[in-house]
Amino acid sequence: MRFLSTEREMAMDQKKAVVLLSGGLDSSTSLAIARAEGFEIFALTVQYGQRHEAELKAAAKVAEAMGVAEHRFMNVDLRGIGQSALTDDIAVPVNRTIDEMNAAIPVTYVPARNTILLSCALAYAESLGAFDIFVGVNALDYAGYPDCRPEYIAAFEAMANLATKQAVESGKQLRIHAPLIHLTKAQIIQKGLELGVDFALSSTCYQPTEDAEACGRCDACLLRLEGFAKVGVADPIRYSMQQG
Amino acid sequence: MRFLSTEREMAMDQKKAVVLLSGGLDSSTSLAIARAEGFEIFALTVQYGQRHEAELKAAAKVAEAMGVAEHRFMNVDLRGIGQSALTDDIAVPVNRTIDEMNAAIPVTYVPARNTILLSCALAYAESLGAFDIFVGVNALDYAGYPDCRPEYIAAFEAMANLATKQAVESGKQLRIHAPLIHLTKAQIIQKGLELGVDFALSSTCYQPTEDAEACGRCDACLLRLEGFAKVGVADPIRYSMQQG
Repeated sequence: MRFLSTEREMAMDQKKAVVLLSGGLDSSTSLAIARAEGFEIFALTVQYGQRHEAELKAAAKVAEAMGVAEHRFMNVDLRGIGQSALTDDIAVPVNRTIDEMNAAIPVTYVPARNTILLSCALAYAESLGAFDIFVGVNALDYAGYPDCRPEYIAAFEAMANLATKQAVESGKQLRIHAPLIHLTKAQIIQKGLELGVDFALSSTCYQPTEDAEACGRCDACLLRLEGFAKVGVADPIRYSMQQG
Repeated sequence: MRFLSTEREMAMDQKKAVVLLSGGLDSSTSLAIARAEGFEIFALTVQYGQRHEAELKAAAKVAEAMGVAEHRFMNVDLRGIGQSALTDDIAVPVNRTIDEMNAAIPVTYVPARNTILLSCALAYAESLGAFDIFVGVNALDYAGYPDCRPEYIAAFEAMANLATKQAVESGKQLRIHAPLIHLTKAQIIQKGLELGVDFALSSTCYQPTEDAEACGRCDACLLRLEGFAKVGVADPIRYSMQQG
């Protein structure tokens, strides 16, 4: 009878998870949750022609700090089919209230974005023999982004279980984990801090400066700042304007 | 009372469809069917690092010959997460019987390929305000490719209708058309010929020569040649070896 596994046996037992990592606050926390649940982490950052390349650098720093097994970048060129302030030349709205943000689907919406991100994660998962995918979508995005809703995640999971050779041949169920889906921004920050996420490495702003300073005025910055304020902790990243 | 619309009114009434176009026999026929159903065609060719770039050139020729409204290329880099003879350095199997082809999922399977292709089509459709997507999957691929089955297509459609701003805001249903799904290769060729597809422009081979000559021995070539033989029509493309 043995009670302790060797390190090697533990590593062999460890289940692999693909974690979608944008380099923002949410996906960094999602990664920390996957790690805390005992998964071996394979981080995937999809470059879809977004303007805020500061996020990509942030993703690399976060992945390294979290000790992932592997970090892949995948390129999907969504520019030109945009209609989104994140990929095209549409102004990012600034200084909006939460009510204004929730009034309509924002111009920062990227067509079918989460579907494309999850599809890339599905391909990566299959190549690894992984049956777990983590995505950092959350409640605050509900009003604006249809592909952040629980019913969307469930539908993607159902589709994914019919899509791959791995699912068909193994009979195992693939699972899309959205551990932040019912959390507020403050709860996500709280959770991340508990799990040792270094939020100084993360990037959230829709329009950072070349020095990766956040604007402090776009929806993403405002939600982030409000979250930190509610937790009662200072946001460790740099902003290009003085915060009030 | 008016019985005839002007050309301009017809164009304004015409519904847009995104057609996934690889440049192969199936997708060319799928495009012809969409056109025959009265859709204005927006062809999408996704480059996923496949080795047979002859297909991309074929796609451009087919799109032009079919008079599409627009033809887009989108790049998705699946190399490196491959495990597929189409994207990695695995030998393409040759000279197999249909039974051998259907015995297991082939090495030419690309992880989550149709999910990624359809996701890109979904993004393109949303940017156009289109609610119809055509994909040329068919019955012959069932045994081998899980993402060619009707239940997979239905699951993707259900997911897509929860995924996009367009679907949520309009209340309209997005539809994934798979008009070849219950056809044999011979029936597809017959259909294509009836609809005026110039199969001399199409490319099917998994390992064409630099001159775009087909090998005549890979699964794709063998299925194509068998299809033309059953229809009793000569395949108009060039093969690098003498056909029997």
